[in-house]
Amino acid sequence: MFNFEFHNPTKIVFGTDTIAKLDQLVPANARVLILLGGESARKNGTLAEVRVALGAREVQEFNGIEPNPSYETLMQAVELIRREKLDYLLAVGGGSVIDGTKFVAAAVPFVGEPWDILTTHGQVVTAALPFGSVLTLPATGSEMNNGSVITRKASHSKLAFMSTHVFPQFSILDPTKTLTLPTRQIANGVVDAYVHIVEQYLTYPANGMVQDRFAEGLLLSLIELGPKVLATPNDYDLRANLMWIATQALNGLIGAGVPQDWSTHMIGHELTALYDIDHARTLAIVLPANLHVRRTSKHAKLLQYAERVWGIRDGSDEQRIDAAIAKTAEFFEAMGIKTKLADYELDQSAVDAVVAQLEKHGMTAIGEHGDLTPEVARQILTAAR
Amino acid sequence: MFNFEFHNPTKIVFGTDTIAKLDQLVPANARVLILLGGESARKNGTLAEVRVALGAREVQEFNGIEPNPSYETLMQAVELIRREKLDYLLAVGGGSVIDGTKFVAAAVPFVGEPWDILTTHGQVVTAALPFGSVLTLPATGSEMNNGSVITRKASHSKLAFMSTHVFPQFSILDPTKTLTLPTRQIANGVVDAYVHIVEQYLTYPANGMVQDRFAEGLLLSLIELGPKVLATPNDYDLRANLMWIATQALNGLIGAGVPQDWSTHMIGHELTALYDIDHARTLAIVLPANLHVRRTSKHAKLLQYAERVWGIRDGSDEQRIDAAIAKTAEFFEAMGIKTKLADYELDQSAVDAVVAQLEKHGMTAIGEHGDLTPEVARQILTAAR
Repeated sequence: MFNFEFHNPTKIVFGTDTIAKLDQLVPANARVLILLGGESARKNGTLAEVRVALGAREVQEFNGIEPNPSYETLMQAVELIRREKLDYLLAVGGGSVIDGTKFVAAAVPFVGEPWDILTTHGQVVTAALPFGSVLTLPATGSEMNNGSVITRKASHSKLAFMSTHVFPQFSILDPTKTLTLPTRQIANGVVDAYVHIVEQYLTYPANGMVQDRFAEGLLLSLIELGPKVLATPNDYDLRANLMWIATQALNGLIGAGVPQDWSTHMIGHELTALYDIDHARTLAIVLPANLHVRRTSKHAKLLQYAERVWGIRDGSDEQRIDAAIAKTAEFFEAMGIKTKLADYELDQSAVDAVVAQLEKHGMTAIGEHGDLTPEVARQILTAAR
Repeated sequence: MFNFEFHNPTKIVFGTDTIAKLDQLVPANARVLILLGGESARKNGTLAEVRVALGAREVQEFNGIEPNPSYETLMQAVELIRREKLDYLLAVGGGSVIDGTKFVAAAVPFVGEPWDILTTHGQVVTAALPFGSVLTLPATGSEMNNGSVITRKASHSKLAFMSTHVFPQFSILDPTKTLTLPTRQIANGVVDAYVHIVEQYLTYPANGMVQDRFAEGLLLSLIELGPKVLATPNDYDLRANLMWIATQALNGLIGAGVPQDWSTHMIGHELTALYDIDHARTLAIVLPANLHVRRTSKHAKLLQYAERVWGIRDGSDEQRIDAAIAKTAEFFEAMGIKTKLADYELDQSAVDAVVAQLEKHGMTAIGEHGDLTPEVARQILTAAR
């Protein structure tokens, strides 16, 4: 096991009727900005419930954070907060709204051009406004981590930053708030969480017994739960488990002390930035091809994955690895998510374009060994056609 | 799944050569009291390493916290801190030293009789001195939770308290510091962690998929690791995994949102208080008998435990449950820990004495259903003879 530090100060408030606890969680004298995505929180009553819980506090709203939150939109929130001297942020939404809120929280006190927060991956962040979240869409884990991914529309750039200053102070996870989600978003959430786990698990053996068993347990849970959550959309316990799985998938725990990959995300981000494909769908395209192309360096963990997650024990090493990769793609397809570039009407020109963007963004030595060059990315994207 | 809150602000610093980080973790102007157990930290150089890392800070020491930390000893530390106006505590040791430090941290600012902290199980705690820990013995999880168990020698009472004010600010987990531990303490640590997990897992189904899979993963890891860690005492990775398993076994994560039992601990505490048997050994005595006696109310989870943890799939329900309980006891015995009262030279009179103490301490309706009465405790202890 590698040396590591683990520190996750976010308080989770989980379950039904928990939004009312905002009154204890947000300081009584806070000047609050609620940050929102589309119209769903307003339409389904969640926003009204939040405003009731905040009582007599001064509250303003900022609407319109996109599914891939943009620098351009978020800077409008930064200006509003500075102008109105607001001092507490409350994200109400999914991972995009929370990611966007993290950027806003760090950008408000930042001296200089806030885009530097992204280009330095957060190294320049020394302070942030305090914030909490009310999660309405289980997928990204942003509700309990200190990472954020922001898109700059003008340059088709999608970059990530991390900082110890942008952990949510609290996150309210009320599974009933996810019952009205469209099937597409639930399916995306399952696949997003699945790939988050794989990025931290399917690398090379590092003797992290807890990390491996926890990762495998989360994958087994998603495989068991995925089809059921689509088939029975009103089941509270299924939604509750999906919500808690997605949080645990990316709160730092399963990745502490073990190697991490994240190349599927890096390649996927370029697909979203160029072609506006849902984040989870880009992961479903890239992951199976990525595992196939890098099967040699991932050999031992692929065999462990085949056995412990998919119960595959028969056949040669290569046959078991093939079967595990096929099962992975089948699972994504069973969730209604296509796994080939052609399914999204993309061809060889997309392969060239994504490779060019990876080079432009300096993503030329990624993956757990730093050996995923643009040439390997080309092989992966070619295999994903 | 039940509603729950999860908040664990302790920072974990894990790995080799991490004690030097104390210089960044402890405030520069802190007036530090180092709290210690026996002589091992002094003899093996850990204490010297800690003092070097603390540099020019004012540092005093308090020695002699016992394996079951006593109110009588700890109150001497409270008096020292008040007299010398020390303001930061550093526990260097195992769970007993850390538990003791938590009590001292809460007792120093407490107005009134500090024993009330125990009799109210922590409800009266409104503040505590800040503290961190350097863990030298993996077992109790105290390094990453807010619980503490204290014994009052005068009355043979062993009581627990919890408070949000007594999370360690940080804990340093350097597995090399556990390499010199005696076999007995390693074996105790494995069994202690095992039973901590079982207390939060083997109750009744509550649809906590993550909690179940994480608990099972920790149990599987202990079963795989236990015999090896005894056989190859110099293996860093085995010690590192044991350390991280024991922390995860009792940091609030696997028990969040699911029912918990803890009756094996309640009964075991009385055995320790009366007969000075090592904590883990009392658990090894009580658990198999407890599972046997309460097999009806634990039926569904016992079958899940049999299948997922021990791979038992053949035979009737009752046969599979019998086999799983037998495997559990065999595992403890393989760790060199006896599982019957008679092995500790105790007979029927001990059964009567423990039941009387449970009644005296108000432990008359324990377990996940609150239906473990003194009569059921008598059945369990009788089965454990």
